[in-house]
Amino acid sequence: MRRFIVVGHDAPTTPDFSLSDLAGGAGRLDVLCRCVAAALLTSHGIREDASVWLVLRDAVTVRFEGATVRNLAPDERTVAGLVRSALESADRAVGAMWVEASPGVFVAKLGFESALASAAEDGLVVQLHEDGTAVTELEEPASCTFVLSDHHDLAADEQAALDAAADAAVRLGPTRLHADQAIVVANHFLDTDGYAAI
Amino acid sequence: MRRFIVVGHDAPTTPDFSLSDLAGGAGRLDVLCRCVAAALLTSHGIREDASVWLVLRDAVTVRFEGATVRNLAPDERTVAGLVRSALESADRAVGAMWVEASPGVFVAKLGFESALASAAEDGLVVQLHEDGTAVTELEEPASCTFVLSDHHDLAADEQAALDAAADAAVRLGPTRLHADQAIVVANHFLDTDGYAAI
Repeated sequence: MRRFIVVGHDAPTTPDFSLSDLAGGAGRLDVLCRCVAAALLTSHGIREDASVWLVLRDAVTVRFEGATVRNLAPDERTVAGLVRSALESADRAVGAMWVEASPGVFVAKLGFESALASAAEDGLVVQLHEDGTAVTELEEPASCTFVLSDHHDLAADEQAALDAAADAAVRLGPTRLHADQAIVVANHFLDTDGYAAI
Repeated sequence: MRRFIVVGHDAPTTPDFSLSDLAGGAGRLDVLCRCVAAALLTSHGIREDASVWLVLRDAVTVRFEGATVRNLAPDERTVAGLVRSALESADRAVGAMWVEASPGVFVAKLGFESALASAAEDGLVVQLHEDGTAVTELEEPASCTFVLSDHHDLAADEQAALDAAADAAVRLGPTRLHADQAIVVANHFLDTDGYAAI
């Protein structure tokens, strides 16, 4: 199982945003939408073993499961529509309970630390960081969560929580990438058994 | 120098499309927009040695140069706005002449074969194809053009033109990726000197 947790610092936690202004009025939700497509979609296919968690302002988490998601397309607007419909269901989510807003798309009132704690129960938690060790030194785990931030760096308290929860900090390469690009590279790394099986 | 040529089969060649319906009314222009961002943008940076050519319906080519492009952001809408403004200038493009529509964004009445012929003058032309040899067997060239298709496979005549022009056909890995994902992986391959320098 592959999981990606992406921290959205400016993204909305309520559904009152326009699908036509994702990069502006919707707090760079475009970044998170591209992360969902990068994590779950291949050419004419879905990664059934993958999931992506969007942690919005440390308050609400929207979760996409590759195994069951429907109506997902790679364009930002389609993904944002699924996020918006999940946020419409957020009021029904009580405590850490997940509500399935549409097939394979879930919402919960979960902050970053709680998301990390869930991930830690399920396998290795890996921080992607330019100062980490090379990803090629990572022994490929059966189950793994990669943690990334949106267009902002993690805040100090978020970084501290991640340092406490992460089993490893790895770098993917010499170039600092956008979060969605980093997800593509991480998927490619796993697809190729660490670049051994091209 | 890295160049990416992306063939857009359904994309518009005139500027009369809505930025709010890229995946529908604008002939999956969203796919091509993600390719531009994947080719040219890093986190808080631009790949100055890269360019991307969008070949639209074998009739018009819009070219983005990383070295000089301005006002480029990774969201689909921003890229599509630059494409639209380039298409507004297409009438001024005569023959194979490029018109600079906005800084670093050019347009010409250039079809796929002409784009390939230009690329061939500048270094290796590489076809990305699932049945190609492993990319790791490619000796890294000083200058290279990768050729990709949008959400459709190349048509028979396009494939024949590419077969004639390409110096190599390579595969990136075992998973069929979207065009923008393949560009991210190709950039990563080059960034890391063929996965040797993570």
